Amino acid sequence: MLADAFSHTSPIAPLLLSIVVIILTARLGGSLAESVGQPSVLGELLAGVLLGNLTLLGFHQLEFLRVDWTHQTTLDLKDAKHCAGVAIDALAQLGVLLLLFQVGLENSVTRMFRVGLSSLFVAILGILAPFMLGMASAYVLLPSAGWPLHLFLGAALCATSVGITARVFEDLGQSDAIEAEIVLGAAVIDDVLALIVLSVVQGMILTLGSGSSTSTIDAVPLLLITAKAIGFLVLAILLGPRISRQLFKVASILHGRGLLVCSALVICFGFAWAASLAGLAPLVGAFAAGLILERVQYRELIAREHRPLHELLRPIADFVVPIFFIMMGFRVDLSSFADVRVLWLAAVLTVAAIAGKIICGWGVQQPGVNRLTVGLGMIPRGEVGLIFAGIGLSLRVNGQPLLDAATFSALVITVMLTTVAVPPLLKWSLTRRKPPSASS
Amino acid sequence: MLADAFSHTSPIAPLLLSIVVIILTARLGGSLAESVGQPSVLGELLAGVLLGNLTLLGFHQLEFLRVDWTHQTTLDLKDAKHCAGVAIDALAQLGVLLLLFQVGLENSVTRMFRVGLSSLFVAILGILAPFMLGMASAYVLLPSAGWPLHLFLGAALCATSVGITARVFEDLGQSDAIEAEIVLGAAVIDDVLALIVLSVVQGMILTLGSGSSTSTIDAVPLLLITAKAIGFLVLAILLGPRISRQLFKVASILHGRGLLVCSALVICFGFAWAASLAGLAPLVGAFAAGLILERVQYRELIAREHRPLHELLRPIADFVVPIFFIMMGFRVDLSSFADVRVLWLAAVLTVAAIAGKIICGWGVQQPGVNRLTVGLGMIPRGEVGLIFAGIGLSLRVNGQPLLDAATFSALVITVMLTTVAVPPLLKWSLTRRKPPSASS
Repeated sequence: MLADAFSHTSPIAPLLLSIVVIILTARLGGSLAESVGQPSVLGELLAGVLLGNLTLLGFHQLEFLRVDWTHQTTLDLKDAKHCAGVAIDALAQLGVLLLLFQVGLENSVTRMFRVGLSSLFVAILGILAPFMLGMASAYVLLPSAGWPLHLFLGAALCATSVGITARVFEDLGQSDAIEAEIVLGAAVIDDVLALIVLSVVQGMILTLGSGSSTSTIDAVPLLLITAKAIGFLVLAILLGPRISRQLFKVASILHGRGLLVCSALVICFGFAWAASLAGLAPLVGAFAAGLILERVQYRELIAREHRPLHELLRPIADFVVPIFFIMMGFRVDLSSFADVRVLWLAAVLTVAAIAGKIICGWGVQQPGVNRLTVGLGMIPRGEVGLIFAGIGLSLRVNGQPLLDAATFSALVITVMLTTVAVPPLLKWSLTRRKPPSASS
Repeated sequence: MLADAFSHTSPIAPLLLSIVVIILTARLGGSLAESVGQPSVLGELLAGVLLGNLTLLGFHQLEFLRVDWTHQTTLDLKDAKHCAGVAIDALAQLGVLLLLFQVGLENSVTRMFRVGLSSLFVAILGILAPFMLGMASAYVLLPSAGWPLHLFLGAALCATSVGITARVFEDLGQSDAIEAEIVLGAAVIDDVLALIVLSVVQGMILTLGSGSSTSTIDAVPLLLITAKAIGFLVLAILLGPRISRQLFKVASILHGRGLLVCSALVICFGFAWAASLAGLAPLVGAFAAGLILERVQYRELIAREHRPLHELLRPIADFVVPIFFIMMGFRVDLSSFADVRVLWLAAVLTVAAIAGKIICGWGVQQPGVNRLTVGLGMIPRGEVGLIFAGIGLSLRVNGQPLLDAATFSALVITVMLTTVAVPPLLKWSLTRRKPPSASS
């Protein structure tokens, strides 16, 4: 306890303060949203936007939270604020994994397969439609930009970030609705397809864009990426239940407290890690982990804890999940809305992005499913879109960056709008009477 | 979800893997310890020692966890492993705060005051005795080293790290025992006293050690440090309950889920932050926060959550608390046990360190208290001792570093032994019949 005699404030002081600030704003924002009949995640997003744009009001004390593992290169560990930024980012990432794990728990593999065909068609349509629409609008608005940019903007609109949708379904207590199953299943397939599209497009831009005449793309790495991704999903579904059953069996003979929640976290984070090894998003792994867990596997442990797993996970999720959505909002840069030319491009891309995903709702095979809800659920681009926009900045065609600042901002705005628009739209669509198209 | 198409493994992959590894080893270690009748924290510590010394077996994959905010200077954020190290360290720090908060919840300010006098005497004896013994043994073993080192080694043995003790009392379900109250109260006072001793000793070493003739130490900063520390404790006890009552009142009118656990975390981390501002250890703040919280303050919220606060905190604690003790063990460097000369010095210092704190148990005023338990509870130096040893390395006398490598290692070994020895000793002392001295 003596450290502080010298550094006077403890190295974790900034972390503690940021956690306090984030929890408070998340709770106030979420509560306000609910009080006007919106899902609390919308309030958390907007509260995050507010926190992240206090710089516009000359308040810069929270800028250290903008630390981003994937972008910044080095940081001064003597500066505890940087560590706080990294730690908050880590808590946010763990938060979204826990959320997808919880949603997975409320569904099961068998139920997912029941809607598998719908998910497949929704995912395929959800890639094709935004791709076409994105390319078309890019071609119309920026004819002189050349096809690599058209291609990239088309691909950029394929992204799907299911975190928001999962959270809205959870906020409305409909995580086990058939629409939720279809969207989540589609998001998993979408993740595999997006991986492929992204690789192809990048390959084409790098080979052709660099002026080389040959249009051949090396198919081997492409097949490898695809095989790894699909391989993970197959293994997770086939071996996953055995692995978890074994883990719970071991845990149930151990001494100690909290073994159920710890075993569950090991499975959740373990699967997320495995997914990332397969080149998939960790949250695909966390969702898969939730899917394959069945109560029967941990009956003994429930008996010891006197409490079902989802109740044990809730306090942890109540703590970390809002951190993810606050930080997602935090990264929204309102100043990018200043440029009219940017706004115009953003508006068109946003329409394409939304239309493209709404269309995919008609990939649903089952009768009696609210296709609009499914389509709306596929709209958010979230952190995936931001990551993709960042990749666009790093790509160069004939030495020139593929994206100029304006196009990048437009893409970022599109991502923001598709993300923030979904909670209210989804809430409206879930609570209104089903349209004729769905009851057919 | 597309990030991975390029970085192929997600930036949080190393974090996920380390969490999985840490949870598994903590659980296995804890279970083994319990199966041989020891507190599980001992097993977690030893499991941590094992993980941290795999390098001796040529396994270096976990070295990135050695990232330490207070020691390392910069880190490469492109290297996700460094971020994982920072994040794990952060989780460990939050873990020990939660632990002290939980222990605080099981006690109350009024009960702490009931044993206040005992705590005060225990704390004072717990500073004086180790200081004298430490200086004496340093003087005998290293007569030529000069008084600054003697002084420093004496002061180094004053440190108290109450995390281990709190955890042992919790493992044995005796967090509300009078011995626990006295030790924890003493630890809080000890933190203030140690702050003063440390400042005085450093001042003397810097002024005198540097060869300057005047032995005057500027009293103003010293008084300031003391005033801030005491000021925080007084304010926390006087205003704390009002602040928390107001926060809970606001929370109870908010919409949303998990408001009780989030409000509690805000108070825990908020007080910890305030304590660090006052130059105290954050865990003193977290403990104070737990002390001042009373059920009456959050009656409405309990009614909404249908569950008491300590049950909501348990899953979070079950996840993060073991991370702290694993990492504490992780930092134990077994290779430092190789040098016989070092071991000899370490042995003597350890005897002084243990004897000094056992003596302080006789500061207890109440009859019927197990004085030996109190003394044993004050023994652990833990992370505080390590931090102090690090400070010793940074001090220079006439241009020479105060501590040479051998003395530093000896000090570190002393810290380790005092830390690892306590769980079994405390368990033995708590479960055996009270000695005559206690029933007087």
